[in-house]
Amino acid sequence: MAIFFCRSFENNWNPYKLLAHVHLPEVKTNINIAIVNVGAPCAGMNAAVRSAVRIGILQGHHMLAVHDGFEGLAQGLIEPIDWAKVGGWTGKGGSMLGTKSRKFSVSLSVALPFCQAFAGGLELVKAREKYEELCIPMVIIPATVSNNVPGSDFSIGADTALNTITMTCDRIKQSAAGTKRRVFIIETMGGYCGYLATMAGLASGADAAYIFEDAFNIHDLEINVEHLVEKMKTTVKRGLILRNEGCNPNYTTDFIYNLYSQEGKGVFDCRKNVLGHMQQGGTPTPFDRNFGTKMGAKSVLWITDKLKECYRHGRIFANTPDSACVLGMKKRALVFQPLEELKEQTDFEHRIPKTQWWLRLRPILKILAKYKIALDTTEKATMEHIIKKRGQ
Amino acid sequence: MAIFFCRSFENNWNPYKLLAHVHLPEVKTNINIAIVNVGAPCAGMNAAVRSAVRIGILQGHHMLAVHDGFEGLAQGLIEPIDWAKVGGWTGKGGSMLGTKSRKFSVSLSVALPFCQAFAGGLELVKAREKYEELCIPMVIIPATVSNNVPGSDFSIGADTALNTITMTCDRIKQSAAGTKRRVFIIETMGGYCGYLATMAGLASGADAAYIFEDAFNIHDLEINVEHLVEKMKTTVKRGLILRNEGCNPNYTTDFIYNLYSQEGKGVFDCRKNVLGHMQQGGTPTPFDRNFGTKMGAKSVLWITDKLKECYRHGRIFANTPDSACVLGMKKRALVFQPLEELKEQTDFEHRIPKTQWWLRLRPILKILAKYKIALDTTEKATMEHIIKKRGQ
Amino acid sequence: MAIFFCRSFENNWNPYKLLAHVHLPEVKTNINIAIVNVGAPCAGMNAAVRSAVRIGILQGHHMLAVHDGFEGLAQGLIEPIDWAKVGGWTGKGGSMLGTKSRKFSVSLSVALPFCQAFAGGLELVKAREKYEELCIPMVIIPATVSNNVPGSDFSIGADTALNTITMTCDRIKQSAAGTKRRVFIIETMGGYCGYLATMAGLASGADAAYIFEDAFNIHDLEINVEHLVEKMKTTVKRGLILRNEGCNPNYTTDFIYNLYSQEGKGVFDCRKNVLGHMQQGGTPTPFDRNFGTKMGAKSVLWITDKLKECYRHGRIFANTPDSACVLGMKKRALVFQPLEELKEQTDFEHRIPKTQWWLRLRPILKILAKYKIALDTTEKATMEHIIKKRGQ
Amino acid sequence: MAIFFCRSFENNWNPYKLLAHVHLPEVKTNINIAIVNVGAPCAGMNAAVRSAVRIGILQGHHMLAVHDGFEGLAQGLIEPIDWAKVGGWTGKGGSMLGTKSRKFSVSLSVALPFCQAFAGGLELVKAREKYEELCIPMVIIPATVSNNVPGSDFSIGADTALNTITMTCDRIKQSAAGTKRRVFIIETMGGYCGYLATMAGLASGADAAYIFEDAFNIHDLEINVEHLVEKMKTTVKRGLILRNEGCNPNYTTDFIYNLYSQEGKGVFDCRKNVLGHMQQGGTPTPFDRNFGTKMGAKSVLWITDKLKECYRHGRIFANTPDSACVLGMKKRALVFQPLEELKEQTDFEHRIPKTQWWLRLRPILKILAKYKIALDTTEKATMEHIIKKRGQ
Repeated sequence: MAIFFCRSFENNWNPYKLLAHVHLPEVKTNINIAIVNVGAPCAGMNAAVRSAVRIGILQGHHMLAVHDGFEGLAQGLIEPIDWAKVGGWTGKGGSMLGTKSRKFSVSLSVALPFCQAFAGGLELVKAREKYEELCIPMVIIPATVSNNVPGSDFSIGADTALNTITMTCDRIKQSAAGTKRRVFIIETMGGYCGYLATMAGLASGADAAYIFEDAFNIHDLEINVEHLVEKMKTTVKRGLILRNEGCNPNYTTDFIYNLYSQEGKGVFDCRKNVLGHMQQGGTPTPFDRNFGTKMGAKSVLWITDKLKECYRHGRIFANTPDSACVLGMKKRALVFQPLEELKEQTDFEHRIPKTQWWLRLRPILKILAKYKIALDTTEKATMEHIIKKRGQ
Repeated sequence: MAIFFCRSFENNWNPYKLLAHVHLPEVKTNINIAIVNVGAPCAGMNAAVRSAVRIGILQGHHMLAVHDGFEGLAQGLIEPIDWAKVGGWTGKGGSMLGTKSRKFSVSLSVALPFCQAFAGGLELVKAREKYEELCIPMVIIPATVSNNVPGSDFSIGADTALNTITMTCDRIKQSAAGTKRRVFIIETMGGYCGYLATMAGLASGADAAYIFEDAFNIHDLEINVEHLVEKMKTTVKRGLILRNEGCNPNYTTDFIYNLYSQEGKGVFDCRKNVLGHMQQGGTPTPFDRNFGTKMGAKSVLWITDKLKECYRHGRIFANTPDSACVLGMKKRALVFQPLEELKEQTDFEHRIPKTQWWLRLRPILKILAKYKIALDTTEKATMEHIIKKRGQ
Repeated sequence: MAIFFCRSFENNWNPYKLLAHVHLPEVKTNINIAIVNVGAPCAGMNAAVRSAVRIGILQGHHMLAVHDGFEGLAQGLIEPIDWAKVGGWTGKGGSMLGTKSRKFSVSLSVALPFCQAFAGGLELVKAREKYEELCIPMVIIPATVSNNVPGSDFSIGADTALNTITMTCDRIKQSAAGTKRRVFIIETMGGYCGYLATMAGLASGADAAYIFEDAFNIHDLEINVEHLVEKMKTTVKRGLILRNEGCNPNYTTDFIYNLYSQEGKGVFDCRKNVLGHMQQGGTPTPFDRNFGTKMGAKSVLWITDKLKECYRHGRIFANTPDSACVLGMKKRALVFQPLEELKEQTDFEHRIPKTQWWLRLRPILKILAKYKIALDTTEKATMEHIIKKRGQ
Repeated sequence: MAIFFCRSFENNWNPYKLLAHVHLPEVKTNINIAIVNVGAPCAGMNAAVRSAVRIGILQGHHMLAVHDGFEGLAQGLIEPIDWAKVGGWTGKGGSMLGTKSRKFSVSLSVALPFCQAFAGGLELVKAREKYEELCIPMVIIPATVSNNVPGSDFSIGADTALNTITMTCDRIKQSAAGTKRRVFIIETMGGYCGYLATMAGLASGADAAYIFEDAFNIHDLEINVEHLVEKMKTTVKRGLILRNEGCNPNYTTDFIYNLYSQEGKGVFDCRKNVLGHMQQGGTPTPFDRNFGTKMGAKSVLWITDKLKECYRHGRIFANTPDSACVLGMKKRALVFQPLEELKEQTDFEHRIPKTQWWLRLRPILKILAKYKIALDTTEKATMEHIIKKRGQ
């Protein structure tokens, strides 16, 4: 449900009221589960919806699709979704929900939203105090290319995006094969989260990957450009610099391009490239399909259990923290974590988790780019710093 | 040989002198053929070099590779290239020539250059008056993603670039699947030549493709944006606008982005994307491989014939216009055309041919985007114009 | 209309009768154009249908889609198809027609079929003598991966298939990188037509490409395997043999695999691979999309003109040979050729044209594989033969 | 080192002797580390070698490449490998080691082999009793498309292979879009390990995936084909059956093809496809690149530590079980496990681990294919069975 775009929150609960109280007699379990996609689409979402719908139907539930995200929910753009409808969705990119909707008057519902982050989910939980119809079990499935959702090592869509970025970096590097010395500055998506820039940098053999989480100043930039100038004097002909879009508001892609162009003058020339929305499209990788499929299935089974717990006197009343969860992958296990408990793990200002496992890989990226840094060989996610040595 | 970057032209003929007069006894035909890649690399060049080298060796010639383009030629970065060396090059992207060279003192040479355009070739021909060592047969093989070489319907590398652009447009469009109404403004390469923007636009179902050859003014832009606003009020949710990089110096990608954003406000939002150097890299398509292979083979056979014609009194003397040709594809036949004769077909200021066959396809692009234009069904490459009708 | 599968031809004209005589008053031109896909689907067909439908609508025609090919036509599985319905079809693989149909009673119709070959079209023309309702203008658009349609240098779908095959050959060759000496025997589609095997062989640097059109005997196979044994004794480590599925009924892929395995024993080992149906699927390349788009548009415009010619006394009566055409690409121009006239250019037994332009490229393939053959440098499509020299 | 192909094991230790005793004075640490690739190449190996070489050099070691696997080691095909040599290897498919080698006389060495399985590694450990020169630390990095290495949840190369298979299944399914009902039977690689077939089946929405680990009999096959016949009577038009190459020696791909063809007669037709070696080639995915990079780096750091432990009286003597390890990924952590200890987790006959985490996903595959099975929602890897219900 997520939903930071939603400003007039209070006026929108009417559809929930509708949803919460009528029973559909032909549904065996009397359970309705609504699926909402919130935020930008990403590869693998459709596999998750397909899986949730089919598992749900097999459990005897009534599955509902909400179109156009939270706004669609507010406007009642809800319709039943059946087994055949999601046929073939596993390989589809983008989001198949969100189109061609029509008004549909329904009953008791439970939301299974996808979200870019869960700030909105927390608002929903908070609103339970005022709105009884929100006292239903909720699951948030992380689905965003940025891989910035607290409570999950991975989010659906990030693998596909990483494949696209890496393949594009390969192409860009190859465009300079056999030519003069050239450095490419490439901007990736990710909000404040440096996952894509770091992992694509590692995969592409980049010389640097600037991200928000590993703060850098003008002095660091200088060291990098001098380092690259030195390398270019050897047999190396191509340089690759990745920059996450949110790494620094002042050290923009243009800024870095200008700095490298000026300081590299006579040794190499520069080109810059903002990869843009191609990172969100594309056919999902098998990892994202299968990850989505598992998440969708798990979510519905969890909701089924929760509903049994919360069913009293002929109605659902879920208001405990553990009835609103994020389903995440932690060290390859799928775990449900209450939204409430994830609060303290979250940097809300920048919409990233306070600790991120992949930061440990950054030293390797730097070492492979020939920086002399202290390599932390433990499993801790400490940050290393480049020590500038004159005459290095 | 091509080569507009070359400013101090006069000082550089020494290597040619070296090349022109010594015989290598172990070579059966006493013919040396040098291959030079000039300008940006593109997919399919390596297939052409492989083919030329192998066919040349079979003809008994001594094949030479010149590294680093024209500068490498001036500095004598020339070395023999043999059968095994080009093994596997057919599927390689970029340019395999241009790296790891060493000085090599050679003899009679004939240049088989690739070029982005042929302006430099013309300079070479002109220089024959002063420099006897340039009186050798020369062929220019068009190899550029831009497909802007006079005398050829296609150039090596354009098919691969078009595949990359179209695949990327597919991804970009898909990134908005299931979301709000959105228009993407995408900038393609091509210099002043609108081939890539037009063909990718047709292949991607674009709403417009702005190019230099089909001049447009602010009024046309207005009509386009209004048209898109109207379409977006129906079931259409995504718009795609392509813009060739050289289409207009003032109506930049930013300008068009701003205009569409402002005029589309409340109906759609906009995103822009400059595709950049990924367009020049990538594994070559079979078309570019096979096209390159044919061009390389034909060139060497032609040079062999020309050399026989020009051989008198123990030396080569080629100074007629037809001894310096562009090898082009015209209606699927490979033809050699003297550089001189192509002069008048060329718009030198913008480095494009004065007539271009693909302009005929633009009306279809517009019609399929639902513009009411007069469709010219003849084979003439006339331009159509959008007639704005109030209340359309 | 094509359609060799159709056995009880005579019983099936009722739908045509329905189609031929009723007018739809709301359609401006009173012209109905039906589009039928016949045979296996291939990439680019949907772009052609989209283009035909939209151009047809703009001409004021009533556009009809026939589902499930000729059988669908016979059963009256015909329905109107509108502008919005074909939105986004340009990038779709497979065939979007042929699913979800319903009975629909219509009127005057003109067929625009796609076909694998045109033998069925000829039957239709012949049937005009008996069935007046077949006296309507007809166009056949060549759409098949095999590229075996008389009257056209290319057919829609062949470029996409060739891309898939070549990319797969690259992958297969790479699977042996760094290992022992290995020869891959790869079987491609194409019926009796060796286009795909030859062009993919050229693009992949194959050592041989066995096809029906270039007859070979056991002696030729022996020479090939000996040649490869010699090459493998040098630095070459991988061999690639392509074999068209219809090249010879006895020298099967298994036969060739066994022969190479036996004769190469101790020098290399062999692997075989039948590429199969992946060759028919996949996202269409821009070439196939744009080729399809052009073909679709041209067809509708031609039919419009033909209908005006054939309209007399309130009805259509087309029975001249030039009212049933194949739309083909000949040397990059799109031309309409009467089915009748293409008869003599056709080898009906093997469903291939009697002459094929790409046969000229086979000597280059052989030369680049290091065979010493006489290279025919003229434009004639004569066949070269390998002359075995002892001790070669 | 690995290496089951090795028959005359005892005769081959001479190169080891050479390696074990001479010091290279210019190497700071006096440590030599040799890298050997054993078995079929796979995507991501080169990234691992690149990383190991560079990290090793930074640690002050002398890095050696062994060409042509174990045989190369026995023949002394060993040469130093430096920083620049591995430049750009991160994105390379296949195995870059194994070519162009020369004799090289060296000294103390430590092996870092890649292997398809580790049976050979165990032999090496056993041989330590007789051959003191094998008393050196050894690491095995799992690198095989099959993902069948005990001690690791994943092996390098499996992600790339899975991407290729899934993409190809997409293409194959699409080849039947809009046509009659059709079932594709597709054979994947994997030896006895059903990982690829299962995961590709899940990703492609397959109707069944036959593997060795989930034993099936003729009765199960019958149920599957009947199930598919039922589905095909609804709106479903395409079926997809995956079959791992080693699933059953009698129920071959041909057998299953014949069974489905016969029992499906009148409802659907069948096509079969053996995917073959394309599964081992291709550009590595970012996952495989980064996984390889991490594994390479970790291995060298571990060997460095082990060498310090084992260094006594001027020489290395490693004969404890924990000095010969497999580096594996267990629940996203990289762990070193003694070869000895992995013995009991291994099914040596079939070269698979006795327990495999991904077997838990098979019920989801079946449920999504519309089988009514009991869904085990716990984390245990129990097998489910299809209960045939008459009239289902």
